[in-house]
Amino acid sequence: MMRRFTISLIALSLAGCSAPGQQLAVPVLSKDALATQVGEKPSPTSPPTGQQWLYGSAEGSIVSAQVYKTMAQYVRAKALNRAIKTQTVLAKGSTPDAPRFESCGTKPLAAVFDADETLIWNVGAMRYMAEQGIDFDPAIWNEWEKSGAGKALAMPGAVEALKTMRDAGVTIIANTNRTAANAKGTEDALRMAGLGEFKHQETLYLMGDDPTGSSKDGRRATIATKYCVIAMAGDQLGDFAHAFNANGLSVADRRMLATNPAILPLWGNGWFMFPNPVYGPSIRGGFDEIYSPQTKWEPAK
Amino acid sequence: MMRRFTISLIALSLAGCSAPGQQLAVPVLSKDALATQVGEKPSPTSPPTGQQWLYGSAEGSIVSAQVYKTMAQYVRAKALNRAIKTQTVLAKGSTPDAPRFESCGTKPLAAVFDADETLIWNVGAMRYMAEQGIDFDPAIWNEWEKSGAGKALAMPGAVEALKTMRDAGVTIIANTNRTAANAKGTEDALRMAGLGEFKHQETLYLMGDDPTGSSKDGRRATIATKYCVIAMAGDQLGDFAHAFNANGLSVADRRMLATNPAILPLWGNGWFMFPNPVYGPSIRGGFDEIYSPQTKWEPAK
Repeated sequence: MMRRFTISLIALSLAGCSAPGQQLAVPVLSKDALATQVGEKPSPTSPPTGQQWLYGSAEGSIVSAQVYKTMAQYVRAKALNRAIKTQTVLAKGSTPDAPRFESCGTKPLAAVFDADETLIWNVGAMRYMAEQGIDFDPAIWNEWEKSGAGKALAMPGAVEALKTMRDAGVTIIANTNRTAANAKGTEDALRMAGLGEFKHQETLYLMGDDPTGSSKDGRRATIATKYCVIAMAGDQLGDFAHAFNANGLSVADRRMLATNPAILPLWGNGWFMFPNPVYGPSIRGGFDEIYSPQTKWEPAK
Repeated sequence: MMRRFTISLIALSLAGCSAPGQQLAVPVLSKDALATQVGEKPSPTSPPTGQQWLYGSAEGSIVSAQVYKTMAQYVRAKALNRAIKTQTVLAKGSTPDAPRFESCGTKPLAAVFDADETLIWNVGAMRYMAEQGIDFDPAIWNEWEKSGAGKALAMPGAVEALKTMRDAGVTIIANTNRTAANAKGTEDALRMAGLGEFKHQETLYLMGDDPTGSSKDGRRATIATKYCVIAMAGDQLGDFAHAFNANGLSVADRRMLATNPAILPLWGNGWFMFPNPVYGPSIRGGFDEIYSPQTKWEPAK
């Protein structure tokens, strides 16, 4: 009722003045614009730009496939060479400023992956939430963890790269913040995407496996007691070290910490980052946080 | 005048009904919402998600730096090995389905780069347009080409990678759709970003250098008459072959063409793609173009 009342009043206000420019205001009386007026989110007509690029474009698929190709070559070479193996998992007590590497002794080799937007693209849930105009809904995501198997896609290059690594004798392990309560759903989603078998607490580690919540450090340490982790992959810094998620880090501080001289050499060389411009702690910041004053520009008047 | 009129009428319509849910509609009467009502674009309060990820996040910088590291290693190895050099520029008449490679004879080696979002991040212009709520304005962009020098940033890893390639005896060439009329502005922008000297029609090729407009194929052929192009880099498929921009290619067709069995091996191995979820022909498509029916999902009711 109130909506129709608003329409008629705005229509009236527009009818009252019909210069061409103002006529342009009329399309604003669409269902979406009206939804906005009553505080609802409009249903989008196309996916967000980041989803168009990542899930739809050739370029998004190619950048992901390039990372997988580089990682597979690195892992294969590292597995086959005879040198004493070291693992890049951050040792207990070390920080991203001063990562410590440990000798592996005779442990079997492993590569550790995040799952979401690293092994699989969650296209089923992402499309549903985007079509609903929802940024993220934990309840919907929980349903997705339970029932999304078969609706998630292996990322471009993942199937081939995992085969190369496994053929070189490297165990593939997933360490994800999906919940342990939905372990079977995640095992099924990874298998049905064509990525092979992942078994909870053997080759699949989930949030709830230890008391440290969303930090993956404890699970990384658990994995490192059994395996020599020669490579790690993810789409967010927390997939490599929880210290990157420290509270109060500004956008610029976080970027500098992750590219400081002790860490920079690891990227593409033991640590492998996949592009995810769709969601996550990587995506935040106002204009003054994203851009520096030194590069501020405006056209000549 | 008409705006104030609209405010008062909407305010009135809301004042007429004051259930809690409807009270939420009041904030909609902000300057931005009102601008929308009269057909203007609201001024955003933060950059678009793609800009937050690419220009601000550690992850965006790391993915770009990884591509540069991989490319520098590839180019250096290719330059130093004794095998007969071949170039990956598509030969005249060849298509992305059947790329032809040509022997280089004794030509000097070169690596060919797009400029925008491949060598430099156009943060000055991107911030200005985003703050104005403008997607893209050719007139503003033209001003940026002329006066943006010093306000564009070398992409993460670019300075180090270009040094590695030049030290290996490889000439760095830019092939961009910036206009030849603004050649000096682009030479200055690249130099002031720390990327070294680029000279128009020697190491910098621009739109207008030949009659074929935005196609870079003719310029690639010109470069290939003088150089052995052992690697190419860009953020859009047109930086590699104009055929990828053929009219009428669907989002899926374009992705399949660029990842077909004849092309897929080139990515990360002669052809290097940088992430750009901000602008360009890579970013288009509705829900049914970005997502396949096979992965459609919704939560259990």
